[in-house]
Amino acid sequence: MKANEFNYLLRATAGKKTITERSKDFPKWYQDVIEVADLAEHGPSKGSMIIMPYGYAIWEAIKSELDARISEAGVANMYFPMFIPEGLLTKEKNHIEGFSPEVAVVTHAGGKELEEKLVVRPTSETIIYDSFNRWIQSYRDLPLLINQWANVVRWEMRPRMFLRTTEFLWQEGHTAHATEKEADDFAKAMLAVYKEIAQDILAISVIDGEKSESERFAGASRTYTIEPMMQDGKALQFATSHNLGDNFAKAFDVNYSAEDGSIKPVWQTSWGLSTRSIGGLIMSHSDDKGLVLPPKIAPLKVVITTVGASDDKVKKAAQELSDSIEETTLMDDRDISPGEKFYAYEKRGVPLRIEIGPRDIEAGQVVIVSRDNGEKQSVALSDVAKTVTQELEAMQKRLYTQSQERLKNGVVDCKTEAEAVAAVEKGKFARVDFKIDSKKEAQLKKNHAITVRCYPFGQDGKAILAKAY
Amino acid sequence: MKANEFNYLLRATAGKKTITERSKDFPKWYQDVIEVADLAEHGPSKGSMIIMPYGYAIWEAIKSELDARISEAGVANMYFPMFIPEGLLTKEKNHIEGFSPEVAVVTHAGGKELEEKLVVRPTSETIIYDSFNRWIQSYRDLPLLINQWANVVRWEMRPRMFLRTTEFLWQEGHTAHATEKEADDFAKAMLAVYKEIAQDILAISVIDGEKSESERFAGASRTYTIEPMMQDGKALQFATSHNLGDNFAKAFDVNYSAEDGSIKPVWQTSWGLSTRSIGGLIMSHSDDKGLVLPPKIAPLKVVITTVGASDDKVKKAAQELSDSIEETTLMDDRDISPGEKFYAYEKRGVPLRIEIGPRDIEAGQVVIVSRDNGEKQSVALSDVAKTVTQELEAMQKRLYTQSQERLKNGVVDCKTEAEAVAAVEKGKFARVDFKIDSKKEAQLKKNHAITVRCYPFGQDGKAILAKAY
Repeated sequence: MKANEFNYLLRATAGKKTITERSKDFPKWYQDVIEVADLAEHGPSKGSMIIMPYGYAIWEAIKSELDARISEAGVANMYFPMFIPEGLLTKEKNHIEGFSPEVAVVTHAGGKELEEKLVVRPTSETIIYDSFNRWIQSYRDLPLLINQWANVVRWEMRPRMFLRTTEFLWQEGHTAHATEKEADDFAKAMLAVYKEIAQDILAISVIDGEKSESERFAGASRTYTIEPMMQDGKALQFATSHNLGDNFAKAFDVNYSAEDGSIKPVWQTSWGLSTRSIGGLIMSHSDDKGLVLPPKIAPLKVVITTVGASDDKVKKAAQELSDSIEETTLMDDRDISPGEKFYAYEKRGVPLRIEIGPRDIEAGQVVIVSRDNGEKQSVALSDVAKTVTQELEAMQKRLYTQSQERLKNGVVDCKTEAEAVAAVEKGKFARVDFKIDSKKEAQLKKNHAITVRCYPFGQDGKAILAKAY
Repeated sequence: MKANEFNYLLRATAGKKTITERSKDFPKWYQDVIEVADLAEHGPSKGSMIIMPYGYAIWEAIKSELDARISEAGVANMYFPMFIPEGLLTKEKNHIEGFSPEVAVVTHAGGKELEEKLVVRPTSETIIYDSFNRWIQSYRDLPLLINQWANVVRWEMRPRMFLRTTEFLWQEGHTAHATEKEADDFAKAMLAVYKEIAQDILAISVIDGEKSESERFAGASRTYTIEPMMQDGKALQFATSHNLGDNFAKAFDVNYSAEDGSIKPVWQTSWGLSTRSIGGLIMSHSDDKGLVLPPKIAPLKVVITTVGASDDKVKKAAQELSDSIEETTLMDDRDISPGEKFYAYEKRGVPLRIEIGPRDIEAGQVVIVSRDNGEKQSVALSDVAKTVTQELEAMQKRLYTQSQERLKNGVVDCKTEAEAVAAVEKGKFARVDFKIDSKKEAQLKKNHAITVRCYPFGQDGKAILAKAY
C-alpha cells in the first residue's frame, strides 16, 4: 500500500537535531520528542499550539478508532455552537465555579459591543442541556445519546504541548437517561471504551476508578477516570466519564413524563477524550532516540529505504516491495546518506524500517529493523509481507506488556502517609487504605504536589496517590 | 448492512408537520425543509446554528468524499489555533479591510483583560502564513500543501441556516509554490475537485469561472468559483479557490532561495468548502414533501418498513431483507400507522423505501418506492438487493440530469443591460458579453440585487449575472 500523503515527512527543514536524555530532564525530553518528530509547534498566542501534519495524523487515527466505538454504542454525532451566552454558563452553580477562572470571553463582534457576552466553550454541558430541555418530553425520547468532535478553550496558566494548551481538540459525549442506574452504567460503559482505546490501541496500561470529591468534574455527582503511569512515574488523567446525577437536569429543567404520567428529571452523563491523550502516548513509549508509536496507531507503519547505490534496479525492487505490503508503507529512494534517512523515520517512531540495496537484491533478501528494540532481521524477499504483519503484531504486544509491567511494578502498597509520600517521591504510585478526607487531600497537594488519582474499581476503597501531569 | 446509528431518526418529537409550498414562499419552504428533516436548529445566540445528527451525518459524508480527494492531491491535514492575534490579522491590507467588519473579538481570558486582543478566525490565511514564513526557506520546501477542517466565525447581519451563520464548519486549504503559474494551476485544480464533489457526488450542475475584481476574496489576485442554480433561479456560491499571487508572501515575508541562489517570494493559493454546501444541496433537489438527497451522499440509503399486521414472521423477513442489502439500510418494524412511518423517511429524503407486509411475503415480493419521483415497483424478494443498487444509481443520474437541465435552460444570452435585468427578474441567469466595469457592477447590485456571479471559463469573457444567496 502506498502512502503518498506522508511526503511531508521528507520536508527538509523539520525538527531539531538533538534530544535531551529522559533520565536527565524528563520534561525537556518530552518537548524535544515533540520537536524532532515534528508533532506540534507553539502558536503565536500564549499557550496555543499548531498541530503539525504528523501529530494530526495520530489524532485522526485515535479519532477514527474512538468514533467507531461511540457510534457502536448508539451515540449520534452532531454539532453545537462554540459560543455560550454567559447567562447559560452560570445556571449550574458548581459548574460555573469550576470553569469561570478558565474561560475566554468574546465581548465585541461585527464591530459592536455585544449585549450579552459570549463565552468560548470550555466544555458544552450548559449549551447542550439547554437544548435537551426542548428535545426531551417523554420517556420515549430517552435515552438521548449524542457526541460532538470540537475545539474547546481553557485558559491555562502553565501551558504544555498537548497536555495543557489554551485550545485543544476533543470529543464530548452527552447523554440523558430515565434512571440514575442507567446513567451510571452508561458513564462506566464509556469509561470502558476509553480503557479499550488506551490499552488495546495505544498499548497503554491504565488503572480505572473513581475520582475523589475534590477532583470531580465541576457539576458531576461522580467522575470516573483512567490513569496510566508515565515513564517518570507520574500519572496522567487520560480520559474521564462523569455521572452528572440530576444536577444539570434541575438547573436546566430537563424533565420527562414517565409511563405512569409522573414528571421526573433525567439523569445525565458526559465524557471526553482530548488531544492530551497524545501527550500520554508520547510519555508512555518514546525513548532517547525520539518517538515510539504502537503499530495500531502509527499513521505510517513501514518505511522502505534504499541504501547504497540507489540505481533504477534498486528503486524498482523497493517500489515492488512497497506495493506488496498491505500496511501503510512509504518508499524513500532519495539519494541521501542512509544515516540521515534512518534517523528521519527513527525519531518519528515509524514501527518498521526495511533496508534494501544492491547487495540485498543479489542475496534475495532485505533487512527489517524494529523501532522499539532496534532489533534487525534478514528476511527473504518472498517472506517480507508476512514478516511485516507478524512483527507489527509482536511490537504492539511488546509495548503493551512493557507498559503493563511498569504499572504493575510501579504501584506500592503503603500503610502510612509518610510511607506513601516517600514512595511517590521515588516515582511510584502509592496505594493506601487509610482514610483521606478533603483536608488531608489539600495538604498532600500543597506540601507534596501529590493528588488522589482515583479509588480503583474493585479494590475496597483503597486510593492511588501520585504526582500527575 | 445495518444502520443502528440512525435510530435517532425515530425520535418522537422531531420536526413540524407542514411544509410551505416552494412556489408560494421559497425561503420559507427552505426553512421548513430543514425543520421537518431535522437537519438543524437555531442556537441560543443570534445567528448560530445547532447541526442536528441527520444534518451532521450529511456533512460527514461530504467531508469524507472531499477529504479523500484533498489527500489524493498530496495535501496534508493539520490544525492551527482559532485565535489570531490582532496584529497578525492586520498585516495584509486588503484582507483586513474585507474581514474587519465581520470578526468576533476575545478581549478577556483567564479572568484578565488581554494585552493583545484575539480575533476568532474568520479564515486562517494570516495565522498560517505567519508559520509558512518559518517553514519555507528553500525551493526544496516547495510546494507546501496543507489543509485544515475547522470552525470559523463571521458575524452575519442577515443569518440564514447553513447559508450564513455566525459560526460555520469548513475546510480551508493553503499552499505555497515556487512559481505564479504553478500556484494558478493548483488553485484551478482544487476548483475542479469542488466541481467533482458538486456534480458527481451531490448531483448539482455548476458553472465554473472567475469572479470579478469586486467579488474577489479579500487579498486574492484571482478568485475562482463554482455557481449552481437553485430551484428558484438564484445562484449560490458553492465553493471558491483563490490565487493569492504574492500578496500574502510580501505581507508575511514568505520567501525562498531558488536553485540559482536568488531570494524570491512564494506564490500562494487558498480554497474552501463549508457547511453552506448543505444549503445548496437542499435548494437543488428537495420538493414540497421535504428533503430529497442524491443516493451517493444520503447517510441512509434504504429504509425497510413493515406494513399491515407486523407479526414476528414479517419482522423476521424484514430483518433478513435488511441484512441482504449491501447499502446502509434501516429496518423500522414499529407498530405505528404506515402513513406515519412513510412520512418520517419521505420528509428526510431517504432515497428508497421498501414496504413489506404479510401479503407481500405470501406473494414473495415487496414494493420499492423511489423518493425523487414517487414511483413504485413490485420486486421479487430474490431481486431486491440487485434492484436497490440499480435504482440508487438511476436516481443519482436522474437528479443530476434534472439539475443539468435546469442550469442549461436557465442561462439566457442577453445583449443589453435591460434584457439582462428582465431575464434575472424572471429567475434566469443572464449571460452577457458587454463590458461591466466596477461602477456598473455596483449599480446593478444596488438597484436590482444582481451580481456578476462569474466569468465562465472558456466563454470569451462573457459574464453571468444573477441574484444569489
